[in-house]
Parts: sequence; C-alpha cells; structure tokens
Amino acid sequence: MKNSVNIGLIGLGTIGGGVAKILHEKADSITKQVGTPLTLRSVADLDETRKASLPDPSIFTTNVQNIFDDPDIDIVIELIGGETPAKTFIQEAIQRGKHVVTANKEVLAKHGPELLSLADKHKVGLFYEASVGGGIPLIAPLKRNLQVNDISSIHTIINGTTNYILTRMEKEGLEFSAALKEAQDLGYAEADPTRDIEGFDAAYKIAILATIAFHTDIRPEDVFHEGISRMTSQDFQYARELGYAIKLLAITKKEGPFIQVRVHPVFIPDDMLLAKVDGVFNAVQIEGDLTGRVIFYGRGAGSEPTANVIVSDVIHIARSINTGTEMQPELYLDTPKQIIPISEIETRYYMRMTIADMAGVLAQITRVLGENQISISSAIQKEADIKSQTAEIVIMTHPAQEKAMQQALDQMESLEAVKEISNLVRVED
Amino acid sequence: MKNSVNIGLIGLGTIGGGVAKILHEKADSITKQVGTPLTLRSVADLDETRKASLPDPSIFTTNVQNIFDDPDIDIVIELIGGETPAKTFIQEAIQRGKHVVTANKEVLAKHGPELLSLADKHKVGLFYEASVGGGIPLIAPLKRNLQVNDISSIHTIINGTTNYILTRMEKEGLEFSAALKEAQDLGYAEADPTRDIEGFDAAYKIAILATIAFHTDIRPEDVFHEGISRMTSQDFQYARELGYAIKLLAITKKEGPFIQVRVHPVFIPDDMLLAKVDGVFNAVQIEGDLTGRVIFYGRGAGSEPTANVIVSDVIHIARSINTGTEMQPELYLDTPKQIIPISEIETRYYMRMTIADMAGVLAQITRVLGENQISISSAIQKEADIKSQTAEIVIMTHPAQEKAMQQALDQMESLEAVKEISNLVRVED
Repeated sequence: MKNSVNIGLIGLGTIGGGVAKILHEKADSITKQVGTPLTLRSVADLDETRKASLPDPSIFTTNVQNIFDDPDIDIVIELIGGETPAKTFIQEAIQRGKHVVTANKEVLAKHGPELLSLADKHKVGLFYEASVGGGIPLIAPLKRNLQVNDISSIHTIINGTTNYILTRMEKEGLEFSAALKEAQDLGYAEADPTRDIEGFDAAYKIAILATIAFHTDIRPEDVFHEGISRMTSQDFQYARELGYAIKLLAITKKEGPFIQVRVHPVFIPDDMLLAKVDGVFNAVQIEGDLTGRVIFYGRGAGSEPTANVIVSDVIHIARSINTGTEMQPELYLDTPKQIIPISEIETRYYMRMTIADMAGVLAQITRVLGENQISISSAIQKEADIKSQTAEIVIMTHPAQEKAMQQALDQMESLEAVKEISNLVRVED
Repeated sequence: MKNSVNIGLIGLGTIGGGVAKILHEKADSITKQVGTPLTLRSVADLDETRKASLPDPSIFTTNVQNIFDDPDIDIVIELIGGETPAKTFIQEAIQRGKHVVTANKEVLAKHGPELLSLADKHKVGLFYEASVGGGIPLIAPLKRNLQVNDISSIHTIINGTTNYILTRMEKEGLEFSAALKEAQDLGYAEADPTRDIEGFDAAYKIAILATIAFHTDIRPEDVFHEGISRMTSQDFQYARELGYAIKLLAITKKEGPFIQVRVHPVFIPDDMLLAKVDGVFNAVQIEGDLTGRVIFYGRGAGSEPTANVIVSDVIHIARSINTGTEMQPELYLDTPKQIIPISEIETRYYMRMTIADMAGVLAQITRVLGENQISISSAIQKEADIKSQTAEIVIMTHPAQEKAMQQALDQMESLEAVKEISNLVRVED
C-alpha cells in the first residue's frame, strides 16, 4: 500500500491536457477506485506556453529527463505521438522500471512486440488502449473477454476523418475536395491530411488489432492500404441505387494459416450495422467461432474520450501497484505470419467507366472480363451523353482475384471504346 | 505457480455443456494464456443422463457437496440458474475459499452486493460477465474502461426473446401471439414465456448494470417493468409512418442524485443504431460525460457465446491464481439510492385509441390532455370505419409526466365518445 501512485506525463497537447484535467477533477472518484491517490507529479513538454493550462504549473518541465530521473514516478504517460522520439521515451521509461501508458499507434504498430517484451522483462505494464478506437474499450475486451474465441475476421471503421468525409459525401452529395475542406475547417482533418486520407492511420490501427487477435506479429508494412480520394459523388449515387454504402474499412481475416490485412474503400450492403456508422464515429466488428458477431461503437477520437481510456489504463496499473501485484504479460505471439498479398485476394468489385456510345462496346468489355475468369453480377448503363458521344456504365462482378481484375483493367484500358476507367472499389458482403 | 488450476462445474445444461466442451477443445490455447492447464475436475448435475456428454464421464457426480468438499478445486462455475439453491451454492463455494464464476442474473440482481462483499471477505473473486448480455463483453469494460466516466444513461436491448418477437412483428406484420408461437417453436422463448415477455429478465439485467454504472445498490424491486404483449401490428404500422421503431428497452438514467430504472416497450427514432438491432441480438448503449456514446452489440444468448465469456472469466481468475495475485474488490457502492418512481418520470407518449366518428371528439380529447398539462406534438386520424361508426386516432405528445398522463387516460376513458384506449407507449428520443 503506497501513499500515492505518481505519474509523469510527456506531451501536454489536447489529449495530455484532457488527462491532466481528469486526474484533477475526478481525483476523489479515482482515489476510491485505486485505493490511494494518483498524483500528477511532473509534466514535460517542449512548448512552455502550455504550462498555464495546468492546475499546478510548478510541475511543468521542458526537460523530459526529469521524468525518467525521478525515482518516485511509477507510471509514465506518453502522448507526444509520432515515432521519434516517442519510441525512445517509452523504452527509456520501461528501462527505468516505470509502467507506461500511451496513445501512440505508430510506435505500437511498428515496435509493439519489442516494447511489450521489454516491458515484460522489466516487470512493468505497457498499455495502449487509447492507440486504437479512441474512447471505445477495445484492446482490453479483446484480450480479456474474447481470447478463448478463435477470431476469424475484424471489419472496422477506425478513422474518424475519412468516415466524416465519406458521410458528408453520402448525405450531402459533396465532392471529395469539398468534404475534405469542410473536415479541415472543423478540425477533423489536418492541413496535410495524407495520413488519414491515404489510410496510413487505419493501417497502424489494424496492424495493432490483428496482432492481438491472431497472436501473430503484424506490422504496418504487412498492411495493404489505399485511400478515399478517388471517390466521387457519382459513386455514392450508384452505391445508393445498388443498395450499398461506401466506407473506408480496415479489414483483417484469417483463413487457415493465411492472414489478410488491408485498408481501402469498400461497398458494404446498406443494411449492415457498419453502414450506419456515420461522421466521426468508429466501430469495430469482430467475428469469432464462439461469440459470433460482436460490435463495439463509439467516438474514435477527441480529447475527452481518449483521455478517459488513458486514465482507465493508469487506474488499472495503479491498482496493481497499490496491491503489490506483478504485471502479467499481455501479449503472446505464437502463430507464424503468412500474409496473403493483395493480388491473391478474392472479392467482388464495383467498376465505373466511361465508354464510347456505340454498338458492341459492352460485348468487348464482357469478353475481356470473361477471358480473365471474371463474371458480371449486374450492370447499369446510363443514358448516353450526346455531346461527347459517351456513356457511363457500372459493373458489379462476382468474386474474382485481384490480379485477374488488374489484368482485365489493363486490357480494358487499351480498348479504343473505353474512354476512362473512373473507379474500381472492392465489395464486402 | 501451480501444476493445474482445478475447476468444479455445477449444472450441465446447454451452457454447462458448452463450457465443458471449450475447456476440452481449446485446452492448448487456454494453457498458453493461463500459464498452466485448467482442469475440469468435477461436474455436478442432478440429471445423471447428462454425464454421457462429458469427454470424461468419471468426473460426473450428482452430489454437489463433492465439489465444495474437494480442497483441490480452485474455481466453481455455477450454471444451474434461478435463485434457489444457486444462491446457497455460490455462498458455500465462497465460504470454502473458492472463486466463483456464474451466469446467474437472478441471484446477482437480488443478492449481488452481499455476495460480492462475502467474496471480498474471503479474498476470492466472484465474476458474472455472462449474467448480462450473453456473449457481449460488457461488465468488464464497464468496470475496467468506463469507470472514470460519469455515466449518465444506459439504454439497452437486453432480452433476445422479446427482440426476436418485436422484429418479426415489424418485418413480417405478424401479431404478437403468432410471433411468440414462432419464437417458442424455434426455442427462443420458453413454454411459459412470462419472464421474458413481461420484462422480468430484462429487469434483473438492468439492475445489475445500473448497480455497476452508478455505484448504487439497485435491486429488481427498484425496476419498473412492463411487457410487450399489448403491441399490435397497427402500432408497428403507425410507428413506421411516424419514423420510429418499437423496442423493449431497459433504461437507467441518473440526473443529479436521482436514478430512474425501467423496462418497457418504447418508440425510438428509426435512425438510432439501437433501432437497427434485430432478432436475438442485444445491444447496450452507454452515455458518459467523457466517452460520449458507446455501444456494445452481439449475441445476448446461446450456448457458445455465453460459454465463451464464462471461460474468459475463469481464465482471468486462473491467471491470478497462477501468479499468486490477490483478487481486488470489483464493486464499490458509495452512492445513496434515490429512485424516481415511474409516476414522476417525464417522457413523450404515443397513444392509439378508437373514438366515435362524430364531430367534436378530438376537441374533447385535446381538452382533457390540456387540462393535465399535456400538449400534442402530432396526431393522425385514419378514415372512419363506416359500419361501426368509429375512427382510430393516434396522438404523439410532447414530454409529460407519467402521473399526469395516467390521470388524463382515466378521464378520457370516461368520455362517451372514447370507445377504447388501445395502447400507450413511451417515446425515447
């Protein structure tokens, strides 16, 4: 039993500020849950102007070493984000015998297994609930409640920025650039939105989830990812007509020893619950042999939801410290990694193209698809544009292998009658 | 570090059989997670014919005392259901120093706080994830991840039987009795369906959730409950017309020191995610000051989903036993109980009635409502039935207090022009 469990916080941005606020405002309730007070003892940030936001600015420092050197600090919260120097800070804290709580998806996705075994070696905890799904309890339930399950797949809307943009395109008929601009104005998207838009952020998160779900060491470079910038208002119109929604999904599946892990826009049937997840909300759908389908839904970002799960991780550790309990290893990786490359994956496809408005073109396209063992499940041809003498057609296919589809695309592009292949989107049923 | 953690199982019904099967079939994976094997050492059931289903029938006994008397049994799983003798069995196990895992919602709702403090006193764990929401991880996330949050409300579809019936009424236009019959034929409803249909089952579950969420001792007798048997196909038609779905919700809310906890059918807007939860699925929507809205969705019943969370609880305890960790108290109740009676609760209402088809009736009804401070937000009057000279009207009200509404109903029933008040359903927005 200690008089107090002491915390060092690195990074006093939006989320760090939220954590400091919760520790201050909810001190009574936290003390009751831990059995002893949690004391925020030191806060490090390079930007000295931020110290004013602290209830007690005297604990502020611009020198992060003060946190590592303080033998009374039990738990370090790392919230600076990005790979460098966050990874070094996490390592340093662990090596100094401090428990670590972090929201850092990039470090966890790239270096999680090494850091977790380092923590295990030093008998400290490394918790990262906040790194995936913001305010949604996800990693703890996966480890604690779904572990007996053999998980077969995870489908998740895990990036709030892109889901906001796609929702605005769907509901308001906006084009991508207008929806992105709106998201930037509202602070949902960054000035350089590449990490979100191109699926890097979602790739980090699905790598973390797949690693836990399949007990396999999955890294960001194993994740195929493709962004949403090619989506247009036409695609949303066709999707609606065909009974689908368009979402950026991060998907991982295990079939026998083979794992697929990918991030890209998909058509999903509009009666799936995931199709109803709008705006900045996130949702994670997990299929297991015992539980069947389980879905977790909530705010995937934002200062308060994220700060809440960080403090929950801190409380979990603090209770163990207070009762003298040793941390138990939280991750075991015993399944060999056999990733299926995207070229080998089979899905259905939605394809939109502009063709010359003349007889026999559809037959040419059908022939190319057929030669590549791709069969059509439905097709829509809209009224021709008389001025340009072109027509737009949309084709939905039966399941086909990605490499066959790519080859068919190459061949179709070389047909004179095909003016443009405007979009190709995978379908998940 | 022990050679094995030993389990005694009481009750070899569907779920008990599922637990025995998982412990057998997933032994390797479980051993890896616990760090030592879990051994099913003894199984007690009064029905001897059930022993044949066990991989090793020699561990079967009809005498439950054998389990309590066995000093090598570390964890007792209670799966006989019902209050008596299950409560005594749980007590006995705890007093003998054994950890307990149970799916028993009735015992937990009625006697949870006493049993949890008994477990605390004997330094053993009492886990009951399976008592609420079947295969959905719910209690652990509430305790572990949402605890810093001040929870303001829980809205939940927590009874699969009634949700199945309501879904069939909505999608197929069935009447209640036909949908119930179908549910019984499929094994989703019992021969005597009262516990499900009248909301007793949901009342137990919401009492358990409210106790955890609000740190207040809520018992089944604190829960107002009303069943679904008055719903008709007309109500579903009007609901659709008005943009609502009809669900049996268990609801608990905290406003200042006041807690409301109730189970009854409600109209909910059809664009809410809960409105899309169909069939035997369950969902729990939790609102907190930090997390905002979080939803958990999955199978609320069934042998495998339920057995999965039971084994997860067992693994959680076994890991602690294996590392020599003491169990930490899992529940603290420090908030005084101030339940708002249903008569004081304010909601909007849907009301359907048959009136005489003559001038001035709507005016009479409006006057009665007005005298009780109830204002109308919309009304539908359908074509009159010429033969009986009656018409059906549906009224949606603005928020009004339950007791004012009940008084208005009494007064309306005494109006000569009101032939029948067919249904009154609360609305949650």
